[in-house]
Amino acid sequence: MDWEKIQETLDSLMEQKRHGQLRGALMMINPVDIAEYMKKLDRENLLLLFRILPKDISAEVFSYMDSDQRETLVESIGDKEITALINEMFVDDAVDFLEELPANAVKRVLQNTAPQTRAIINQFLQYPENSAGSLMTIEYCEFSPEMNVRDALRTIKETGVDKETVYTLYLVDQRRKLVGTVPLHKALVVPEDTPLIKLVDPSLISVSTLDDQEVVADTVRKYHMLSIPVVDGEGRMVGIITSDDIMDVIEEENTEDFEKMSGLAPAEEPYFKTGLFKLAGNRLPWLLILMLTSIFSGAIIARFESVLAMNILLSASIPMLMDSGGNCGQQASTLMIRGLALGEVKFGDLTRVLWTEVRVGVLVGLVLSAVTFVRLLLLNQAAVDLALVISVSLLATVILAKGIGCTLPLLAQRIGLDPALAASPLITTLVDASSLLIYFSIATEFIL
Amino acid sequence: MDWEKIQETLDSLMEQKRHGQLRGALMMINPVDIAEYMKKLDRENLLLLFRILPKDISAEVFSYMDSDQRETLVESIGDKEITALINEMFVDDAVDFLEELPANAVKRVLQNTAPQTRAIINQFLQYPENSAGSLMTIEYCEFSPEMNVRDALRTIKETGVDKETVYTLYLVDQRRKLVGTVPLHKALVVPEDTPLIKLVDPSLISVSTLDDQEVVADTVRKYHMLSIPVVDGEGRMVGIITSDDIMDVIEEENTEDFEKMSGLAPAEEPYFKTGLFKLAGNRLPWLLILMLTSIFSGAIIARFESVLAMNILLSASIPMLMDSGGNCGQQASTLMIRGLALGEVKFGDLTRVLWTEVRVGVLVGLVLSAVTFVRLLLLNQAAVDLALVISVSLLATVILAKGIGCTLPLLAQRIGLDPALAASPLITTLVDASSLLIYFSIATEFIL
Repeated sequence: MDWEKIQETLDSLMEQKRHGQLRGALMMINPVDIAEYMKKLDRENLLLLFRILPKDISAEVFSYMDSDQRETLVESIGDKEITALINEMFVDDAVDFLEELPANAVKRVLQNTAPQTRAIINQFLQYPENSAGSLMTIEYCEFSPEMNVRDALRTIKETGVDKETVYTLYLVDQRRKLVGTVPLHKALVVPEDTPLIKLVDPSLISVSTLDDQEVVADTVRKYHMLSIPVVDGEGRMVGIITSDDIMDVIEEENTEDFEKMSGLAPAEEPYFKTGLFKLAGNRLPWLLILMLTSIFSGAIIARFESVLAMNILLSASIPMLMDSGGNCGQQASTLMIRGLALGEVKFGDLTRVLWTEVRVGVLVGLVLSAVTFVRLLLLNQAAVDLALVISVSLLATVILAKGIGCTLPLLAQRIGLDPALAASPLITTLVDASSLLIYFSIATEFIL
Repeated sequence: MDWEKIQETLDSLMEQKRHGQLRGALMMINPVDIAEYMKKLDRENLLLLFRILPKDISAEVFSYMDSDQRETLVESIGDKEITALINEMFVDDAVDFLEELPANAVKRVLQNTAPQTRAIINQFLQYPENSAGSLMTIEYCEFSPEMNVRDALRTIKETGVDKETVYTLYLVDQRRKLVGTVPLHKALVVPEDTPLIKLVDPSLISVSTLDDQEVVADTVRKYHMLSIPVVDGEGRMVGIITSDDIMDVIEEENTEDFEKMSGLAPAEEPYFKTGLFKLAGNRLPWLLILMLTSIFSGAIIARFESVLAMNILLSASIPMLMDSGGNCGQQASTLMIRGLALGEVKFGDLTRVLWTEVRVGVLVGLVLSAVTFVRLLLLNQAAVDLALVISVSLLATVILAKGIGCTLPLLAQRIGLDPALAASPLITTLVDASSLLIYFSIATEFIL
């Protein structure tokens, strides 16, 4: 059934107030789609639908809802219902949700949860944002290394563990140290009396609670894992992170890089959820900085007024020089930023990269200058010396831009800054100023 | 054990030619790390190590190796060994590898594989690049809807299915149509005589062989799936795609967007694997186009020579205007490109987006213009009318840049182009030309 049809059916059931049928219909739909459908409901219908939802999926639907819809719901339902919801949610989802609530609401809600849940949630709330600890879930299967396959399968059946978790068996010793992992598929194809310890994966890969989510994502991606165990400072197992959450991390990190490369402060909410002043505020800092630095380029132009006055082609070529320089720099920096993000390039490669980029700059610059030289002679009837000055300046600008463009992101990474921050807008300004200086120096030398 | 220590141990075992111990050591290391270690080996040692590898992991290690290392290996080992390797690999990895080989080598290799494997691989080689068909693997568990849990677990144990595949049971009817999926964890917690059909997930989500990998990635991410079934045009089950492969797709799509936004032709290989001429060739087309379009900006400057001659501040403000316009446009376009990629914004939102961006432009522009106005009066001792002309031009440029920046990516998407292609370099050029026109019009009006 397609999405249009699903919506229509739900719409008409809502309208006719056929709540029994509606409940049945909702059981057949993916919780992600239910959350999607709820987006267009008003407060009253939202609450109605949410209360009709079968209890076992309402927590999951809740965890997929927009933050402002959750807010609407939370305002409308009582503390008791919220607490029930939280007890039903995966801990990581519950923590995400609580982080959105105002502090006093969190306190009120937590007072009503079971003491054990409360302790765990409080622990979670203390992990730094974007750390492995704040991402992980505690719903995983823990087994003693002494168990065999039969014991393990019986434990799974008895505890009825949840889906986030069952596909890797984590072996934990008496001091809760993680000693190894067994992929469930291995346990399913051997005789039932095989000790789990015999099936352990030879290489044990884990992350620490304080590791940044970027490290977690890189590790999971590198080793093609479905989930990764999280251990505390003493190597004790405390949770797992599953690959579906990693996908969201990857997109989040990429969005942040896109934003930084365009001189935007990272937004925490999707575009339409962000207020006008926040949207403007995210853009202003870099725009101001870059506007002020571009005054240098202006000052250079003012300083060489007399040179510019000699021939209008000298002024008219400024946009071409500045744009080409900016574009060349941005190309090089983008390649570096992606290379760093994907682990293909590192700071130690600087000289190798620089040498490559300078040669690429020469190749690209020669083509661009040749085209410009011919264009100036044929279309603009420029004198040969003038055409030469402009073309040679362009060549020098392109080479310089490639050099600056590849160096800055690597340097930024080296001194602990985000390479994406050193990207295009800043590079454009640097390249602008230096290309103008080159331009006027050459012009002064050869025309005056 | 950390990576440094692993390398040292392997290095010394290689040097001392302790091949038995080396083989033992390799069994303890993750195949991803073995492939990583092999990167630094020369041809001879590469071949040696590869032949020492236990057979059951050599295919996996091979699938993680660099393309040029695979080439080296393939040149050194015989067709028979290659064929054995291919028979051992997952079909999707084997196809990836074969796609890199020259056509006659593929033919030679395929002649030696089992007829059944050959037929499957040939089928795969016909799927379009980046389609679901080319991504999928055929190693998955297929069950008849009549089976119960006991039958299913017995089948798994008997066929010894591999890890890519076991965590979702795919129910396929006699005409090979996919009728439903059962998450393995559900089967493990119910009595063994429960019919599989009772455990089927209510919503069946699949993709078609010809769907683009971006669609696949979006679906898997949206529904938090570990794997997704792939069906052919008639709804028959033909394969699955697992979430670890989806992560690579997500990064690939992001890299492509980064490249396009910076005016780069998408590279197929990592930076250091790409030849100098290819690197230059990927950058030249857009640089040439953008250089030629920036001549328009130059022509506008030349046309208003007389205006510029009146006051050097008019020339000196050009970089500030052009840079601010370019940066504002890029900010807006980046937000749109990300919004489109993540499904948060669509073409139908154009008027809403435009209205938001124009208001953001007014807010941001007022701040920038105010700073500029004060700066011109205090630092540059500009006349009030001149300062006003420049500040008002800046305000108009910022608003226009926001408008162009948000509109182009949405329009591009609408007419079936990649929105990332419409991004910063093109927008910069457009904004440059129009901001200069605004600037000179205002200047002509109010100063002359």
